[in-house]
Amino acid sequence: MSVTVAKGFHAAGVAAGIKDSGGLDLALVVNRGPRRAAAGVFTANRVKAAPVHWSEQVLKGGTVAAVVLNSGGANACTGPLGFQDTHATAERVGEVLEVSAAEVAVASTGLIGVRLPMDKLLPGVTTAADALSEHGGEKAAIAIKTTDTVHKTAVAGRDGWSVGGMAKGAGMLAPGLATMLAVLTTDADVDSAALDRALRAATRTTFDRVDSDGCMSTNDTVLLLGSGASGVVPGPDEFAEAVREVCADLALQLVKDAEGASKDIRVEVVGAATEDDAVEVARSIARNNLLKCAVHGEDPNWGRVLSAIGTTSAVFDPDRLNVAINDVLVCEDGAAGADRSLVDMRYREVRITADLRAGEQAATVWTNDLTADYVHENSAYSS
Amino acid sequence: MSVTVAKGFHAAGVAAGIKDSGGLDLALVVNRGPRRAAAGVFTANRVKAAPVHWSEQVLKGGTVAAVVLNSGGANACTGPLGFQDTHATAERVGEVLEVSAAEVAVASTGLIGVRLPMDKLLPGVTTAADALSEHGGEKAAIAIKTTDTVHKTAVAGRDGWSVGGMAKGAGMLAPGLATMLAVLTTDADVDSAALDRALRAATRTTFDRVDSDGCMSTNDTVLLLGSGASGVVPGPDEFAEAVREVCADLALQLVKDAEGASKDIRVEVVGAATEDDAVEVARSIARNNLLKCAVHGEDPNWGRVLSAIGTTSAVFDPDRLNVAINDVLVCEDGAAGADRSLVDMRYREVRITADLRAGEQAATVWTNDLTADYVHENSAYSS
Repeated sequence: MSVTVAKGFHAAGVAAGIKDSGGLDLALVVNRGPRRAAAGVFTANRVKAAPVHWSEQVLKGGTVAAVVLNSGGANACTGPLGFQDTHATAERVGEVLEVSAAEVAVASTGLIGVRLPMDKLLPGVTTAADALSEHGGEKAAIAIKTTDTVHKTAVAGRDGWSVGGMAKGAGMLAPGLATMLAVLTTDADVDSAALDRALRAATRTTFDRVDSDGCMSTNDTVLLLGSGASGVVPGPDEFAEAVREVCADLALQLVKDAEGASKDIRVEVVGAATEDDAVEVARSIARNNLLKCAVHGEDPNWGRVLSAIGTTSAVFDPDRLNVAINDVLVCEDGAAGADRSLVDMRYREVRITADLRAGEQAATVWTNDLTADYVHENSAYSS
Repeated sequence: MSVTVAKGFHAAGVAAGIKDSGGLDLALVVNRGPRRAAAGVFTANRVKAAPVHWSEQVLKGGTVAAVVLNSGGANACTGPLGFQDTHATAERVGEVLEVSAAEVAVASTGLIGVRLPMDKLLPGVTTAADALSEHGGEKAAIAIKTTDTVHKTAVAGRDGWSVGGMAKGAGMLAPGLATMLAVLTTDADVDSAALDRALRAATRTTFDRVDSDGCMSTNDTVLLLGSGASGVVPGPDEFAEAVREVCADLALQLVKDAEGASKDIRVEVVGAATEDDAVEVARSIARNNLLKCAVHGEDPNWGRVLSAIGTTSAVFDPDRLNVAINDVLVCEDGAAGADRSLVDMRYREVRITADLRAGEQAATVWTNDLTADYVHENSAYSS
């Protein structure tokens, strides 16, 4: 399934030898048309990887014939030579597929600050082109994994057309775009402008609201490619909903596979004066290390929720704040409410609901607990 | 030593029974004059503990006769009844010392959201008053400990006068005031306005630049009391420097005793266009969980430093950033510089220097590594 569920797309995932492990590490996704419409959103980090700089330019043209993605190296902070590597990769894809390099998007993921082994990557492009097939989506999804324990794919099927997608991401998951690579494809017959509208609306409330560890990547890339191969022109709302469905599905898969996590925490802020207030408060809660440790210990420590809310500039009265954990109202009017021993936190999903009681707006941010395994995974080796 | 090194101050630390452990948990610091000048700075968290609300009012009068501090409970998020408890505590101190309750500052530390056991605390005030002595500074410093493994005191001795201080803090150490309780005393003959100027200047570049875990407390309080008992009127610069010396000493002791930490990280940002830029960048680096894990693993992962810098709004060119770790220039012009294997990270102190190459301003923020022990300490029980 994955990116090849939509008609008009071929994909492949191969082992180019970029990863020391010898696993799949190079993915190619090709749009066979008839349309080659595309849209993309990229990291808000000002330190951007070479492939992000390249792909931002490609997307300005609104046409993408192919995307080449590699794991095993982020090609970030690699200077002008790193940019040349990205350029050479796009050129090689252009040659083997007989398309313009200016219509080839590139995405990379892995360690920052290290050049890619081009002697392995470029031959890998040829191997991947040879392996392209309409069943290649699964292998492509596997080839972009880094510390991911599982590959992530999602599909929204509709009447005669569909949206499919793949994503990777397990650490450096944070806002400004949640931190990962994702490629979505559709055979709906829509132009690049419509793809762009649907993608931006979807990422704003899905990938952008995943904040596993507060760390923003240099390589975030989400692409949506349209082949038009179904010949079906969906209504804009219907199309936007299908794109959102796939983005939301993939974003939640990222949370569930976050490095070292033992809990998925749904932070819902309601009663906010504005959506911006709701997002600011939700993010502040989601980023509080002490709270994340408490959730790991299955301790409904609502004091740490209030302490996090208090650092924001949102509209609220400290003496009217309500907080529920797994639907038990443990904090009422800014002070102790129901007995905290009533909160059952044994399950993987934990819901924290903060009511600012200052308006009607709401937002949900997903995060994870902070665990010794997260520390181990991010201290035992470079990633 | 501690708060009783300055003439005119008596202190005590007793076990009132607030802590289940039976350890010292109530401290009293009394200014015997002739002056009773005072200044205070408090948490920037909008969710403030009852004693913070109380003490802010007391400090507006510019006169503090005594400070009562308890560990074993923060008295934060305890509603109107929690405020009544603080008021009753000040009243009891006023009664036993024959001073006005309006001149008694109160500080509390411990778990948020739980009422204090007033049946134990109020008799404890009487016990503490009976134990007051000019040698009581040490016991007072011990009585304010929570998860601290050691008590923290500092002294700046000058010609005929001195500044002494004590502090507690090991978690929820973050900006907006670094998160702790601290009481400083001086027998210099200065008024409250001069105390206030010296204290604000000192905390801005000491306690405010400690950011152990990014979590801002509800109870931060730093008080400076002046007895004038030395009869010496120091010059304003000399006095400010002595206050800064004690604050810096105590702030660094907080970092060195941070929960679960195995490394103290000095994040120095130089070449910034403004001091605000330097602080913003230093704080962003200091709060990056992935970097803090890398330091724990003794991995000079400069890519994570650049990734953190990239999330700020400071003035810089990503392709001109330089980063040194323990004085090895591992990143030059935004890309790999010296061989990272040259960096020796075996020692407890790690220095990260980021040069934005955009101006002449600098700032230093202290933080710690992120360890499995931090997770354990903050997930195994409520704190």
